[in-house]
Amino acid sequence: MRLFSSDSAESYSVGPVNVARWEQYSLQDTLPFQAMWYSIPPGESSPTDCHPEVELSIVISGVASVEAGGATTLAPAGSAFLLEGDEAHVIHNRSDERLLIFTTYWMTPAAAITGAATAEVVS
Amino acid sequence: MRLFSSDSAESYSVGPVNVARWEQYSLQDTLPFQAMWYSIPPGESSPTDCHPEVELSIVISGVASVEAGGATTLAPAGSAFLLEGDEAHVIHNRSDERLLIFTTYWMTPAAAITGAATAEVVS
Repeated sequence: MRLFSSDSAESYSVGPVNVARWEQYSLQDTLPFQAMWYSIPPGESSPTDCHPEVELSIVISGVASVEAGGATTLAPAGSAFLLEGDEAHVIHNRSDERLLIFTTYWMTPAAAITGAATAEVVS
Repeated sequence: MRLFSSDSAESYSVGPVNVARWEQYSLQDTLPFQAMWYSIPPGESSPTDCHPEVELSIVISGVASVEAGGATTLAPAGSAFLLEGDEAHVIHNRSDERLLIFTTYWMTPAAAITGAATAEVVS
């Protein structure tokens, strides 16, 4: 058994966001995804992010206001939110509590297939 | 974006453990792992569990006392614990708070390779 604590992880700042990437745990041969902890103080927001990987985030504490696709959805502690590949998103912390999230992301063959199918429909 | 709440998930009981499997979300073509939410009330413990899949668990609230390999390790909210394939484990909630965990599990080729390498060393 191995224990990983968000409190003691090596981290760095991306604007107001504190990011601790799981590469530091050297689990690349074990995990079928990449991962990170990140936290956002009350009243702050992440920069806009957009990447080809699908992203699944677990809210550990606080409430995330997830802005994506022209809507903002509240994701409180004990919930998870899934973002498609290439879905632009901003995470706001509009609560009074520190927002702490565990997030995973990966490239999915299904996403590539969906992209190809969509391209066919458009053409 | 899709939101998944542990509070409203369909669940069932395994002894004192409340289990909500993610199969209900029909994400098998998207996620590179299986997943579930589970919760354990204060003073209760899970049955012993042992399976070939590697398991990564994120503690959302409460404190897990993770018994594995003859030792018990405290995993508080904001930490994660990783169990190897075939590593027997019992999760105790010795805190006064409901223990809520998000857990993922998957079969890993690396685990199979490690097993084969170990067998070679032994023989």
